[in-house]
Amino acid sequence: MQRKSLLDAECPIARGLERVGEWWSILIMRDALHGLRRFDEFSRSLDIAPNMLTRRLNSLVEAGLLERQAYSQRPLRYEYVPTAKGEDFRGVLMAFVAWGNRHFAPEGESVQIVERKSGRPVQAVMVEIASGDRVPLADCTVQAGPAASASMRQRLGAIAN
Amino acid sequence: MQRKSLLDAECPIARGLERVGEWWSILIMRDALHGLRRFDEFSRSLDIAPNMLTRRLNSLVEAGLLERQAYSQRPLRYEYVPTAKGEDFRGVLMAFVAWGNRHFAPEGESVQIVERKSGRPVQAVMVEIASGDRVPLADCTVQAGPAASASMRQRLGAIAN
Repeated sequence: MQRKSLLDAECPIARGLERVGEWWSILIMRDALHGLRRFDEFSRSLDIAPNMLTRRLNSLVEAGLLERQAYSQRPLRYEYVPTAKGEDFRGVLMAFVAWGNRHFAPEGESVQIVERKSGRPVQAVMVEIASGDRVPLADCTVQAGPAASASMRQRLGAIAN
Repeated sequence: MQRKSLLDAECPIARGLERVGEWWSILIMRDALHGLRRFDEFSRSLDIAPNMLTRRLNSLVEAGLLERQAYSQRPLRYEYVPTAKGEDFRGVLMAFVAWGNRHFAPEGESVQIVERKSGRPVQAVMVEIASGDRVPLADCTVQAGPAASASMRQRLGAIAN
């Protein structure tokens, strides 16, 4: 991000976007979580200019989502492996898949989310943490958490949810 | 997107990113789903240049995520209201909140996802659609769906999941 308010710095969406706030980065993480590792593989998959790919890979390494691992010593070559933080980005990607399928796939689903072992279709649902009861997405909202600043509390409180 | 392969055009993540593929757009949707409606409200919240805000609002209207509604006739002024498609983007935002909270909130959560009525914390989990059984996120992957082209099938099949 080039500019941001202090409030944005406190917002978990803004913080997440600081790490992957660019669609190339999101598509690189998509490919990395699908098993791509090497510069050439990303390059072929994404049809992205090499300098741009280098820049985005470096920024994902700096952000701690990918890790460089040498796979050849001479010449020295690296592959890019998702860290635990990067692995966990899968949840955001799955939400994108589901939303894209619901609204931008009039011809049917080209990509389905499934359980790896069984191949059975899965979906994300919201549940209350304590009871495990399902809660419709439309009934979910955000509120100030324990670490919220006074201005974040005001921001979240002032707007009708 | 400026460039994309045909495969990307078929991927639901890429299709979704075409609509909101820019962090300003994602933050605008965050604010819109939190109740902001007017140009000045977005402007104050985001600390964004007016010409950039105009451009991103227009592109979200074109993409069908926001709808322009007149709230004043003279002068003619519009507010921006989420469509059903835009409302449903909440799932992606919630996934961003959860990921941001898990990895980039060392001081604790400033923003929590809760059920609106009760204020009780909720979270997204993956469930098998048919049985409702929970499936760990790490056990979820993508596979070719019924509408997948031959090249998409090859792409999804060729890579180790």
